[in-house]
Amino acid sequence: MEFLKVDTVETARAKLFASVKDWIASAETITPKEALGRILAEDIYTSEDIPAFRRSTVDGFAVFSADTAAAGESLPVFLTVKDRIEMGRQAAVDISRGECAEVPTGGMLPGGADAVVMTEYAEPFGEDDIAVYHSAAYGENVVLPGEDVKRGALLLRRGRRILYRDVGALAAAGVTSLRAYAHPRVSILSTGDELITPDLTPRPGQIRDINTSALSALAETHGYTIAGSAVLPDDEAVLQREILKAMENSDIVIVSGGSSKGKKDMTREVIDRISSPGVYTHGMAVKPGKPAILGYDAASRTVLAGLPGHPVSAMMVFELLFGWLRREITGCPMEPAIPARVSRNIASSPGKLTCWPCELEWIGGEYRAEPIFGKSGLITTLTRADGYFVVDRDAEGVKQGEIVLVHLFAKSR
Amino acid sequence: MEFLKVDTVETARAKLFASVKDWIASAETITPKEALGRILAEDIYTSEDIPAFRRSTVDGFAVFSADTAAAGESLPVFLTVKDRIEMGRQAAVDISRGECAEVPTGGMLPGGADAVVMTEYAEPFGEDDIAVYHSAAYGENVVLPGEDVKRGALLLRRGRRILYRDVGALAAAGVTSLRAYAHPRVSILSTGDELITPDLTPRPGQIRDINTSALSALAETHGYTIAGSAVLPDDEAVLQREILKAMENSDIVIVSGGSSKGKKDMTREVIDRISSPGVYTHGMAVKPGKPAILGYDAASRTVLAGLPGHPVSAMMVFELLFGWLRREITGCPMEPAIPARVSRNIASSPGKLTCWPCELEWIGGEYRAEPIFGKSGLITTLTRADGYFVVDRDAEGVKQGEIVLVHLFAKSR
Repeated sequence: MEFLKVDTVETARAKLFASVKDWIASAETITPKEALGRILAEDIYTSEDIPAFRRSTVDGFAVFSADTAAAGESLPVFLTVKDRIEMGRQAAVDISRGECAEVPTGGMLPGGADAVVMTEYAEPFGEDDIAVYHSAAYGENVVLPGEDVKRGALLLRRGRRILYRDVGALAAAGVTSLRAYAHPRVSILSTGDELITPDLTPRPGQIRDINTSALSALAETHGYTIAGSAVLPDDEAVLQREILKAMENSDIVIVSGGSSKGKKDMTREVIDRISSPGVYTHGMAVKPGKPAILGYDAASRTVLAGLPGHPVSAMMVFELLFGWLRREITGCPMEPAIPARVSRNIASSPGKLTCWPCELEWIGGEYRAEPIFGKSGLITTLTRADGYFVVDRDAEGVKQGEIVLVHLFAKSR
Repeated sequence: MEFLKVDTVETARAKLFASVKDWIASAETITPKEALGRILAEDIYTSEDIPAFRRSTVDGFAVFSADTAAAGESLPVFLTVKDRIEMGRQAAVDISRGECAEVPTGGMLPGGADAVVMTEYAEPFGEDDIAVYHSAAYGENVVLPGEDVKRGALLLRRGRRILYRDVGALAAAGVTSLRAYAHPRVSILSTGDELITPDLTPRPGQIRDINTSALSALAETHGYTIAGSAVLPDDEAVLQREILKAMENSDIVIVSGGSSKGKKDMTREVIDRISSPGVYTHGMAVKPGKPAILGYDAASRTVLAGLPGHPVSAMMVFELLFGWLRREITGCPMEPAIPARVSRNIASSPGKLTCWPCELEWIGGEYRAEPIFGKSGLITTLTRADGYFVVDRDAEGVKQGEIVLVHLFAKSR
């Protein structure tokens, strides 16, 4: 047996990415209506100037600015109203010096006009004229063609998660289809002789499985789709059969469980046996997180991962590897972390990155990060934690009162 | 015509809530698998102790702690191994003084045992005995029944948005169904003679409608479901017909558009005519945001709202009213805001709450809020802004370098 070296998180990530980079970033064509929450797989450029015409930003009168230069409150300038422009219509006629056209907010300026005088600064005078009491500078109250977005400009960048506002921008630009990253398929297998499915009542010694539910929901949160999940006993033949079955329709097969020494080896050995080149990461220097196993089967293009059985550890390792992988594939950046003052001293772990779950509280005009401890508080840790902060492996820990950056746990897709 | 007083945001919200509080908070029964991202409409209590039995937190030997009191590195204590407990099984026999049972991590302790000695501190001795080189205190390496969550304890509170971790906690507690708030139905009508649907090519004077797309996506982001949407001309008869049609299958009908004076009155008049008690908010003291109209039809239980035509203003008013309403109905708190140093002086608006869109940048160990300005940068404002901060109506503005709280724009459901 080879010497089982533990990888740093960076090394494990690099190996993981190397095994999938050629094939996992597939994209599909969708409509803007389907785009909310999806991640762009292409840069989107505008094919037209926006706006496409000179628009008024106010209700008023389109004028030659030079005509109004001398206008003032006590000495108005008189202009002839040549036209009343309707919303959504091109002006019927151009205006000449001494003329103007009434124009609504958002209306198109007539040829000749180069500024708009607000209605408030004008009043009717005689049958067809207005008196203007305020000068309008060249371009005043006017949006020029392409002033918002120029034709050919980059509207939205690859890797952007489409927000509701982007759906609006796509509409404005007339984009009717776009390429978005597909959801890689993940299977979740949770192993343990003590585990039963959540709908059953545990007998003494049994507990309900958390990982198929929580890891599936976490994977969906990160833009994966669930190909299948199962709760399995600690049986090598069953495990091998179920992994092989899952490999048929999955890009990633996650096996959680086997926290005791013998079982950890079982998952590693099964993965190594049925895949080629097989297991390439035998552990990761992260806390919580041992054991963490990564392997790859080139023929079927499947990543095979062994995660801890402890739910909080399993989720943390999933976040660190497959949450990261999704961002790396798509170019979608992490959410902004929240600076918070830590409420107590936190030790670092020699040689290990530590991820501390914490609650976030708004106290005295700033956030306080309250680390969540406890051997037993499994479900409490699950439900109380708002996010986590990272203590570097080479750091000397974090002192009470220091500012840490809290990464909020992802909310949902 | 009555005097049209403008409401503060607080007053408009109070009126809105009063009109819907008796009927809009409907709930439905869902399974944990469907629960991700949904908001709980009930408190969820556990019906069992978790764990239900005494569990070992390590691989080791279950012992009477008193038997190990004298154990040390140079003077071991010898115990007879009575049983090897399997994961998920109840111990076949209890242990007595001088005896122990091998137990895996997560395994159930046998009767009699009150602590677990880690495998590292024991070694085989003879056929059936072990030598223990370390004392174990009462309860050491043991999780007691209910130590994680007690039977009858509050597991998840009403108003909680179900995260992936909560899905795991529900599984652990054996919850198989739960009550979640239903999605109120919203219709979006965008009015303007200049507007065309996004799939068409604008003629001079026309622009593509943004609001049906962006407001629909925003409403979905806040947990509403879209009953319908339409782009309409500025025609009173058409508007009345379409609002009445939308009222048949909507809880809330949004009309955006009519930024010019005459059209604003049209929306208000139509809403007031076809509903009873009719329009109760004729405007809101918020910037951007005028005009904002709220009305109610008691017979059909429909909220009728007139929003600005300008997309950024429309979205801000929707956030302030209907984003707020959703949180108020469900008890779901706002996401944590991010403290950021503002990059320039921002004036307040006399008598008005101002919502400033801004970009968020991480510079020099803190966030900087870069306000987004510009008469014309409509689409730029849509796509560049990460969130907004609020300048109170009674404040003297915000000085460059002050800390503001940035509310991130909602990401997706």
